[in-house]
Amino acid sequence: MIATATTGTILLAHGSRDPQWRLPFESILKKMQAQSTAPLALAFLESMTPTLEQTIDEMVAAGTKQIHVVPVFLAVGSHVRKDLPNLLETARQRHPGLTLEASAAIGEQDVIQEAIAQLALRASTLAGSK
Amino acid sequence: MIATATTGTILLAHGSRDPQWRLPFESILKKMQAQSTAPLALAFLESMTPTLEQTIDEMVAAGTKQIHVVPVFLAVGSHVRKDLPNLLETARQRHPGLTLEASAAIGEQDVIQEAIAQLALRASTLAGSK
Repeated sequence: MIATATTGTILLAHGSRDPQWRLPFESILKKMQAQSTAPLALAFLESMTPTLEQTIDEMVAAGTKQIHVVPVFLAVGSHVRKDLPNLLETARQRHPGLTLEASAAIGEQDVIQEAIAQLALRASTLAGSK
Repeated sequence: MIATATTGTILLAHGSRDPQWRLPFESILKKMQAQSTAPLALAFLESMTPTLEQTIDEMVAAGTKQIHVVPVFLAVGSHVRKDLPNLLETARQRHPGLTLEASAAIGEQDVIQEAIAQLALRASTLAGSK
C-alpha cells in the first residue's frame, strides 16, 4: 500500500554512558537502511542522543505522517512499560496529525527468542567440539 | 562429538528489580530445553537470582566439566566488558577442572542483528498497511 512508503521507523534503545554501547544498534539500523528507503532512525531513552522526542520531531519536520517505534529491549521493565507510553502520548499531543505507535519489545517476540535460543545452542555445541 | 553432551550452557542476563523482566529469558531457556538434553540454566548479574556464581557451582556439583556462558545482552557496557571476565576468572580459580568460556554478547552477533532488522522492517510495513 502507498501508506507504507511514508511510515518512519525508530529503533528505540536504552542508552549508556559507554560510547561503544551504541554500535550494535547502529549496525541494525544500517542493515535496515540497506533494505528500505523509508525514514529510519535510532533514538535512546537515556544517556545518549538523539532522544526519542528529537527523532520524532525531525521525522515530522521532514514530512513523515506515520511513525512506528520498535523498542530494542530484551525485556520489559519500567522504561518500556511506563516511560515509553508517556513519551508517545506527549509526542502525539505535540503533533496532532501524526500516527504514532510502538511494537512490543523485541525480546518479547517469538522470532527473536527463537533466534537467541538457536544461537546459544549453537555456541555451546561449537565450544563442546573444540 | 561426545564432549558436546557434557557442555553446560548458561544464559546470562542483566537482571532487574521488576519480577516480570525475567520472562523473555525464561522463554528462551524453555525453547532450548525443548531441543537439548544438555545442562541449561539462566543466571543474572544483578537484582535477580540465581547469580552466575551459584549457577556455575550447581552445574559443577552435578558433574558438568565444561560450561559455556552466553551473555544475553544487546550491547556491551561495563557489565559485559569488565564484570563478566572477573566473574569467570573467579569461577575458574574455584573450580580448577572446569573449562569455562563465554560468547560475545548476542547483540554483537550478525544473526541477531539481522533478525532484529527484519522484525523492525516488518513491524513498520504492517503498521503502514493498516
